[in-house]
Amino acid sequence: MPGVKKINHVAIVVEDIDSALGFWRDVLGLELDHIEEVPSQASKVAFIPLGDSEVELVEPIDPESGLSKYLEKRGEGLHHLCLEVEDIEGMLASLKEKGARLINETPLELPGRKMAFIHPKAANGVLVELYELT
Amino acid sequence: MPGVKKINHVAIVVEDIDSALGFWRDVLGLELDHIEEVPSQASKVAFIPLGDSEVELVEPIDPESGLSKYLEKRGEGLHHLCLEVEDIEGMLASLKEKGARLINETPLELPGRKMAFIHPKAANGVLVELYELT
Repeated sequence: MPGVKKINHVAIVVEDIDSALGFWRDVLGLELDHIEEVPSQASKVAFIPLGDSEVELVEPIDPESGLSKYLEKRGEGLHHLCLEVEDIEGMLASLKEKGARLINETPLELPGRKMAFIHPKAANGVLVELYELT
Repeated sequence: MPGVKKINHVAIVVEDIDSALGFWRDVLGLELDHIEEVPSQASKVAFIPLGDSEVELVEPIDPESGLSKYLEKRGEGLHHLCLEVEDIEGMLASLKEKGARLINETPLELPGRKMAFIHPKAANGVLVELYELT
């Protein structure tokens, strides 16, 4: 079976990245790598490396996006868990064969990575993102 | 400032560990290390090492516990993020000095580790656990 290598990142949805950095960077002492807009996910993201993973602070930039609606409904907090895999197509095929409900049946290709989401209904309420670095 | 070393684990609250392993182990292919009862947290926990972190599936064992009430109110899903620190007393002192709201002002000592929780109101809705391995 194609393997999961590690936790690539844990994403936290926040109202405002600058204000959130007041805790994660200034109080907790984590180091911000950079902030960038990720239009495919309708968000602005602060990347905070930690061990061999990352914490990502994710701020919605489009009020019509699913992320904005999630934030409005559930409030700030843990949003998704991203697992890095060796072979995302192989993993998606294996998940599909085993009947796991997917949000993306084929990966979205972005510079440096392919990604897809598993539906939270398949994963005990957890929105699981899969990454293959390319 | 005392440092955060890495993500020790990401905890997922589930109704039933055996049923949850049907996804995390059998479908996703992660390897279960072991399951143990953690009476101090009123839970049974499946430990699933992943890279230099772990995924933990946490099942409440006491219907009166905060964890049971959380599960009842919010449903299954991501529950807390555990960060491993070098010096938990130093970190708690630093957090307190900076006005961060804590659940535990002094660490709970368990075999092999000291632990304390930061209040989600301090951390953008995220329940943050701190671990120092001892």
